[in-house]
Amino acid sequence: MRVRATVAYNGGSFHGFAVNEGVRTIGGDLTEALTRCLRQSVDLTGAGRTDTGVHAWEQVVSFEAPDDADLLRVRTAVNRMLGPTIVVRALEAAPDSFHARFDATSRTYRYTILNREVPDPFMADTAWHIPRPLDVGKMNAAAAAIVGEHDFTSFCRRQHTADGTEKSRVRVVYRAGWQRADQDLLRFEIEASSFCHQMVRSITGTLVDIGAGRRSPEAMAAILAAKDRSGVPNLAPPHGLCLWSVSYS
Amino acid sequence: MRVRATVAYNGGSFHGFAVNEGVRTIGGDLTEALTRCLRQSVDLTGAGRTDTGVHAWEQVVSFEAPDDADLLRVRTAVNRMLGPTIVVRALEAAPDSFHARFDATSRTYRYTILNREVPDPFMADTAWHIPRPLDVGKMNAAAAAIVGEHDFTSFCRRQHTADGTEKSRVRVVYRAGWQRADQDLLRFEIEASSFCHQMVRSITGTLVDIGAGRRSPEAMAAILAAKDRSGVPNLAPPHGLCLWSVSYS
Repeated sequence: MRVRATVAYNGGSFHGFAVNEGVRTIGGDLTEALTRCLRQSVDLTGAGRTDTGVHAWEQVVSFEAPDDADLLRVRTAVNRMLGPTIVVRALEAAPDSFHARFDATSRTYRYTILNREVPDPFMADTAWHIPRPLDVGKMNAAAAAIVGEHDFTSFCRRQHTADGTEKSRVRVVYRAGWQRADQDLLRFEIEASSFCHQMVRSITGTLVDIGAGRRSPEAMAAILAAKDRSGVPNLAPPHGLCLWSVSYS
Repeated sequence: MRVRATVAYNGGSFHGFAVNEGVRTIGGDLTEALTRCLRQSVDLTGAGRTDTGVHAWEQVVSFEAPDDADLLRVRTAVNRMLGPTIVVRALEAAPDSFHARFDATSRTYRYTILNREVPDPFMADTAWHIPRPLDVGKMNAAAAAIVGEHDFTSFCRRQHTADGTEKSRVRVVYRAGWQRADQDLLRFEIEASSFCHQMVRSITGTLVDIGAGRRSPEAMAAILAAKDRSGVPNLAPPHGLCLWSVSYS
């Protein structure tokens, strides 16, 4: 049967989601645990390929399992092996054709910043600590410039397809905005059709530059239009980033 | 001058607060950092001696510093050395006689339980994960039995004073109760004049036994009255416990 898993993880000690020989990845650990529990080799796909150090609250994963697999038992067994760092929150039968990556209509990422002078020992793993005050109004004005369909070359690391041609970096951003939660906590949520490599961290880093007054809000549209990666030097650190949710039609 | 510090820490990798030769403690790291920043030896006192693995959000610490010390600079320097695991949230001049431990009129501890089947990767350090549903009504009924002045021998590890006599284990509990925050998150807050060793973890462990149906709510008063430590086998793990605040008159 086709199975859909909803997975949360603290990515701090992993080299990202995608299975990668020789390094510890979330996908690698999950594959191994599921293969042991299901007693057959598992080939899984995730909705988003989170980078080294990036977290997820709702990564969606699809794979094939034997028709008689007891999914509740498998979930408990996998969580006993991998939890609490990697947790399968839900494990359910899906339509035969379900594909976590190709069927996803949008992904939402959340970036968290602790914006006050003193750090917080309990947010060290999950928020970027920025002591100087950021201007959220300016950051939101700038974020508005990236909503819609754009070529995000300025905010993406180059990647090539198997035949050597460059991948398209045109994406549709449905929404992008900051909210001040709980006084000193800033949360950026961005939803898009999909994201290219390092896109959210590049956008976040640029918005932080704008919020700190190092660039003007108007710079955002100009950087986007330039389609030039060299204009974005400030990459936000991975530990503040979390794959928050994935939508399917 | 007399100085009062408000300190937060993730106690996970420390052998408790109290300075203890040969092991890493929060008090030891703080003493070292303050001694380096103030360029004179520092002898500090904390309001509560948290155990190995126990956290604090508002530990209060007092010590002597040179009259011309720039406290804002010292705070920044100490946080650069110890943060984000140990963070000095505030550092301020206090009345000459201020003593963090003897002047405290009450301490409040908070214990957090994640009460749902699947764990949470982002609460692994700070909440006790209990998969089976707990009955909060029963836990609160039982908690009411410990409010007031009591001999807490049943809930405390024995300790001796310097001359070999046993320390009193009479304490005044001002309030003790559970709240369900955010669906699956249970928070126990207990405020008392002071606490003896392992008291909050013993009480929490017993209340969890009651919430899980392994003991009746009425057992709480009987255990307390027995003044017998052997009746409390279930010690809650340290990582769910946090010294939440300290009051001064």
